[in-house]
Amino acid sequence: MSSIAEHLAKKQKEISVSEFFERNRQILGFDSLTKALIMAVKEAVDNALDACEESGILPDIYVRLDKVDDKEYRMTVEDNGPGIVPTMIPNVFGRLLFGSRFHAIRQSRGQQGIGISATVMYGQITTGKPARITSKTEADKPAAVKLIMVNTKHNTPDIVGPAPPNDYIMWEGKEHGTRVEINLNGRYIASKQSVFEYLKQTAIVNPHASMTFVDPDGRTFSFPRAHDKLPPATKDIKPHPEGLELGTLMNLGRATRTKNVKDFLQSDFSRISERLAKEIVERAGLRESTKAPSMDLEQYKALLGAMQSVKYLAPSTDCLSPIGEALIRKGLKNDLEDLKPEFYTPPVTRAPKVFGGNPFQVEVGIVYGGSIPSDQPVTILRFANRVPLLYQQGACVLTKSVESVDWRRYGLEQRGGSGIPFGPAMILVHVASTKVPFTSEAKEAVAAIPEIQAELELALRECGRRLKVHLNKKETKTRTKAKFEIVQEILPLIAQKSAKIVGKPVPPLSGTITKIMNVVWIDDAVSYEKRRHRVRVDIYNYTPKQMRFNLHAVIPPEATTLLKAEPRPVQVKDDGKVTWELKPIRSTDKFTVSMELEGLEPEMYDENELYASGIDPSMIIGADPLPGDWDVARLQVTEVPASQEEPAEEEEVDYDEQTEALNDD
Amino acid sequence: MSSIAEHLAKKQKEISVSEFFERNRQILGFDSLTKALIMAVKEAVDNALDACEESGILPDIYVRLDKVDDKEYRMTVEDNGPGIVPTMIPNVFGRLLFGSRFHAIRQSRGQQGIGISATVMYGQITTGKPARITSKTEADKPAAVKLIMVNTKHNTPDIVGPAPPNDYIMWEGKEHGTRVEINLNGRYIASKQSVFEYLKQTAIVNPHASMTFVDPDGRTFSFPRAHDKLPPATKDIKPHPEGLELGTLMNLGRATRTKNVKDFLQSDFSRISERLAKEIVERAGLRESTKAPSMDLEQYKALLGAMQSVKYLAPSTDCLSPIGEALIRKGLKNDLEDLKPEFYTPPVTRAPKVFGGNPFQVEVGIVYGGSIPSDQPVTILRFANRVPLLYQQGACVLTKSVESVDWRRYGLEQRGGSGIPFGPAMILVHVASTKVPFTSEAKEAVAAIPEIQAELELALRECGRRLKVHLNKKETKTRTKAKFEIVQEILPLIAQKSAKIVGKPVPPLSGTITKIMNVVWIDDAVSYEKRRHRVRVDIYNYTPKQMRFNLHAVIPPEATTLLKAEPRPVQVKDDGKVTWELKPIRSTDKFTVSMELEGLEPEMYDENELYASGIDPSMIIGADPLPGDWDVARLQVTEVPASQEEPAEEEEVDYDEQTEALNDD
Repeated sequence: MSSIAEHLAKKQKEISVSEFFERNRQILGFDSLTKALIMAVKEAVDNALDACEESGILPDIYVRLDKVDDKEYRMTVEDNGPGIVPTMIPNVFGRLLFGSRFHAIRQSRGQQGIGISATVMYGQITTGKPARITSKTEADKPAAVKLIMVNTKHNTPDIVGPAPPNDYIMWEGKEHGTRVEINLNGRYIASKQSVFEYLKQTAIVNPHASMTFVDPDGRTFSFPRAHDKLPPATKDIKPHPEGLELGTLMNLGRATRTKNVKDFLQSDFSRISERLAKEIVERAGLRESTKAPSMDLEQYKALLGAMQSVKYLAPSTDCLSPIGEALIRKGLKNDLEDLKPEFYTPPVTRAPKVFGGNPFQVEVGIVYGGSIPSDQPVTILRFANRVPLLYQQGACVLTKSVESVDWRRYGLEQRGGSGIPFGPAMILVHVASTKVPFTSEAKEAVAAIPEIQAELELALRECGRRLKVHLNKKETKTRTKAKFEIVQEILPLIAQKSAKIVGKPVPPLSGTITKIMNVVWIDDAVSYEKRRHRVRVDIYNYTPKQMRFNLHAVIPPEATTLLKAEPRPVQVKDDGKVTWELKPIRSTDKFTVSMELEGLEPEMYDENELYASGIDPSMIIGADPLPGDWDVARLQVTEVPASQEEPAEEEEVDYDEQTEALNDD
Repeated sequence: MSSIAEHLAKKQKEISVSEFFERNRQILGFDSLTKALIMAVKEAVDNALDACEESGILPDIYVRLDKVDDKEYRMTVEDNGPGIVPTMIPNVFGRLLFGSRFHAIRQSRGQQGIGISATVMYGQITTGKPARITSKTEADKPAAVKLIMVNTKHNTPDIVGPAPPNDYIMWEGKEHGTRVEINLNGRYIASKQSVFEYLKQTAIVNPHASMTFVDPDGRTFSFPRAHDKLPPATKDIKPHPEGLELGTLMNLGRATRTKNVKDFLQSDFSRISERLAKEIVERAGLRESTKAPSMDLEQYKALLGAMQSVKYLAPSTDCLSPIGEALIRKGLKNDLEDLKPEFYTPPVTRAPKVFGGNPFQVEVGIVYGGSIPSDQPVTILRFANRVPLLYQQGACVLTKSVESVDWRRYGLEQRGGSGIPFGPAMILVHVASTKVPFTSEAKEAVAAIPEIQAELELALRECGRRLKVHLNKKETKTRTKAKFEIVQEILPLIAQKSAKIVGKPVPPLSGTITKIMNVVWIDDAVSYEKRRHRVRVDIYNYTPKQMRFNLHAVIPPEATTLLKAEPRPVQVKDDGKVTWELKPIRSTDKFTVSMELEGLEPEMYDENELYASGIDPSMIIGADPLPGDWDVARLQVTEVPASQEEPAEEEEVDYDEQTEALNDD
C-alpha cells in the first residue's frame, strides 16, 4: 500500500481560496445568469451603504446596468462615501478574504471580505475583463483609477492598468466617493427576484438612503430618501461571554496583553465588571495573579465552567442598528403604497439577545389587506442587517420561524397549523447581528440557530396578536352592526304588526332594543391635521344599565407631547400606554374621549389600539380585553392624585413631564 | 474624507481561511450540537470511502462514538484504506483548502479539501483538544501517530505530539489503514437526522462497503456488504468544452504547454479531435500556429465563440460512477426490507450530460406501498456522489425537481400539481458529477443549475411513469375483477329468475358474459428457483371474437441468458426489450407465454413490465399500451427469420448470441 499512499501524496496540494471559489461560484450565489446580476449589484450597493454609514454620510447611490452584448452587461455603482485610499484598492477588489469588518464585533452588511472581490472574479471569468475602480478621498485632489483582476492561482490582486499618468483623473462635481465598474455575463429580468426588487426592498429597510437605478433600457427609477437621519453609528464591542466556546476562550487567553486572568476577563470581554471577574476566578479555583497565556487545558476548562455559571447583562445595544418600529412602518408605507393595504400592524422590535457570544436583535412587521392577494401564501420579506434576502427562502431560519407559528390563531389560513400561511398579508422579518450566521458566502439565508429562531417566533407571535386585535375589532364590529340593523328594522315591524292584531298602540321599543343588543359600542378615529394627530373615541351604552369601566390606549412612544386629553387619563406610561378611569355612562347615553398628539409623522399613527378593563369583555364592541401583561397592579401605584382628576381649566393640558420618558428609548 | 479613508484603510486586513470558518462554522454545517456529530462522522467516512475506492480496496469501516462528558464526545473512524504518508498527515488534517481531489476532474466524495480539517478545527474550538491520527501504509512497518491542531491565524497545521519515539506504534492485525480520533462537542440523537440514518443511507448507495457502528451506549450496528464488487474506478478527464467560460479558457490557454492553439484544443480538452480542432481554429479566424499563451482578449473571445458553435460528443462516462439501476434496487431492498414495500419501480439512470464543462449523471428510484405511511409527504432520499444529504432539503435542486413534477399524473396526491407529493412512497434521487455544485461548504444541498434540474425532471417523470404502469395495472385488475365477480354471480341469478317467470329453460351464459366483459385478461408471475427467474404470462380471451396482438416485456439487461422462451420471441433488443407476435387466440381460450432468465440476483427482477400493441388498448387488462418511444418500426428490421419461429426441438433454447449485447453497457 505504500506505493498507493505515496502516489496519493504527490497529488495533495494547497488550494487557493480564489481557485476554490472560481470552481464553486454557486456558493457565492453566482449560479445562474439572472442571479449573477443581482449578486453583483447587491455586493456593490452593500459596500457603498456600509462605507457611507461608517463615515456619517447620508448615502446617495447610483446604479446602472448597460447591455454590452447578448450576454455581457456593464455594471456601474457609484456612491458618495469616503473613497478608498489608492494603495488599498487592489486588495479590496482583487483579493478574497480581505476586509475591514471581519474582526469588528458590530453590525455591518459586509463582514466576510469576499463579496466584491468575488464579483470582480466572476466578471473576469465570464468576460475576461478587469474591474475599473475610481475613488476620490478629498474634494481638492484628483481621483485614483485602477483596473483590477484577481490572480486566482495565488489569491492576489493584479493591477492591469491604466498606465500613469492615466491612473489619476479629475472627477468634477464629486467631493468624495467610489465608482465600481464591472463587466459580467448576466441576464436582466424585471420580475420578482430582480435587481429592481432588491433595490426596492433595500429602500424599505434603509429609508435614510437615496438610490437611483438606470436599467438596461435606459429607464431611470428613483428611490428617494424617506428619512433624513442616519441610523445611529454602530460601535465595536468586545466578545460577550455568553455561549463562548473553549477553543475561542483559549485563543483569546493566549493572545491577551493583560497581566493576569482577572484583568483578562475584565478587559477582553463585554459585561464583566471587576467584581464579576473576581467571582469567576474564584469559582474556577484559579489565582487572580495567574497569567492567562500560560494556563493549561484543564485550567481553561475550569475558567469556562465558571464563566458559564454566572449571569450577565444583555449586550449593549450600540453595536446593533435595528430599523426600529417607526421606520419599519414608514419604510413599508413608502414602498407598498400602491397595494393600499388596509392595516399595518405596529411592528415589533425585540430587545437584543446573544447566540454564541454574538449579540442580535429581531424585528417583525405585518401588512394586511388592500390589494394583497388573499388566495396565495403570504409574502415574506426577509432582511439581515438591513439587506434584503431574495433567494434560498426555504433554507432560511426567517422562513422556518414563520412556518412554525400557528397563524390560524391570528386570523390567517394555514393547513395543519404549520407552514407558510395563506392570506392577504406580507410579513417583514429582520435579523440584525454583529455576526449574521449565513448558511453560505452568498449570504442568501440565515442558519437555524436555536436562539435566533426562538426570538423570531416570539416577535412573530406578538405581531400576529396585533394583527388579530385588528381583525377581531373589524369582525365583531361587522357582526354587531349587522345585528343592530336587523334589530332596528325588524323589531318595529313586528311591534306594528302585533299591535295591529291585538288592536293596541305600538309600544316604545328603545328599551327593548338595548336589552337585545346589550353591548357597549365604541367608535374611534384618528385624523392628522396641522402637525397633530387627533384621536376621538365615542362610547355608546346600548345596555339597559349604567356602565362604568377603564379605557386603555397605546400611543407611539415617539410622540413628544400629549395635548387636550379629555377626560384626563389617570396614567401615561413611558411605553405609550394610557389609561382612563371613565365615569359611569347611563343606559343609551354616549360619552366621548379625545386627545391630541404632537411629534409624530403622519404615517406613524393611523389606528387606535384600544383595550377595556373592569367590564365583562363580551359586552364591549370596539376594544379588546386588557391583556394580562399590562400589569394593572402597577396602575394603582402610579395613579394620578385625585385632585388632578378635576376638569382642567387651561385649554391645553401639557403632559410634557409625564411623556418626557417616552423618548428615553 | 481623506482622514476617514485613511482610518478605514488601517483596519483593512487579510483574513485567514481558517479564521473565516472558525467564525462562520455554520457554513461548514457545524451550526448545532446534533449536526456537529453527523458532520464529523460524514467527513471522516466520506474520506475513508474515497481512499479505499481510489486504491481498489473493498471498504471496511468502523465508526464509534464515546461520550466523554455532558457535551463532549470522542469520535473514532477507522478504515482499511491505503493509509497516508506521515509527512502529509499534518496538511491533510490541519489545513483548510488542502487536498488531492480538488484539481481532478472525476467523481469523488471529497472535492473541497475542507471537510476533515474543518472537523479537526471544530473539535479543537469546542474541546481544546487535538485530533489524533494513526496511519499505516505497509503491513510490515509500524504506524505513524500524530496529534494535530489547526493554527487558525495562519491556516497551517500544528503538530502538538506525541514526542518520539511515541510517534510510531505497532498496529497489530492491520495491514494498512487510517484511524481518525477527534474530540468534539455534540449531542447524540437516534432520530430521522442522525449518525445512524447517515450510515444507513450511505449503505443504500454504497452496497460494496461494509460498515460497523458503535453508538455512545456501546450498542453495535452492522451494515454488511451487499455486493462484493467495487464500482469501476473513476478516471481523471480533461475539461469538456461545453459551457466553458471565457476566463477559464484564458486561464487554460495561458498555462498550456502545447506549442500552438490547435494542439491546445486537441490536448487540453475532452472530445476535441484533430479534425474538430482544425475546424474550430478556422471558424475562429485564427492561424493554427498561433501560440495560445500570447493570444489577446479578442482572440480568446473569437476562439470561445467558435468552440461554442460546434457539437461535441457527450463526456466519456469513466469519470463518473453512478450506482446503476440494479444496485439502486438492491441497495433499497437491502435497507428498506422492514417497510415491506409493495413495489420498487425499475430505477432510472440517465446518460451523462454536461453543465459548465462538468459531466454529470442523475439517477432516480421509487419505492411504493407496504408500511410507508400514505397520509404524509413522500420521503425524498437525496444523494450526491453516493453521499446522503440529510439537511437543507428545501434549498436543494433534488427537492425542487421533485416539487416541480406533476405527480398527480403518476398516481400520487399533490395539491395544485406542484410541491412535495403525498402518498406511500419514497423517492431516491442521486446526482453524480465530477463537480457537484453544492450551495455551501457543508455540502448539504445542490444548487439549482438548470441543466441538472432538467435531467432530474426527466428521470423523475420516467420513474413516475413506471410507477403509474404498476398502479394502473393494479387498479384496472382490481376494478375488472370486481366486475367479473358481479357479472358471474348476478347474471346466472337473473337468468334463472327470468327463465322461471317466462317458464323457459335457463339459457347458456358464457357467450353473454364474454360479451359483457369484452376484455383480454393477462395474469403474470415471476418466481425464482434454482438460480433462475421463471416468468409466466397467462392470456385469457374474454371477448366474443378471436384476438391477435403483440406482447412486449422488459427484462433487466443484466440477465446473461434467456432460456425456454415459449413461444419464441420475434425480437430481443440489447436494452432488454422482448417482443412476441402472438398467434390468434380464440374467444374464451387461454394462451400462455413463458420464459426463464439466468444471471440475475433474486431481487433484481420481481415484477413484469408488460405492454401490448396491435390491439385496442382499452380491451387489455394486465398490460399497458406500448409507449411511442419503443420504435416499433425497428421491429421489422431485426425480426427473427421465419424459419426460427418453428417450435425449437432442443429442451434449452440458448439465446446467448442475441443477449450477449445485453451486457455491453
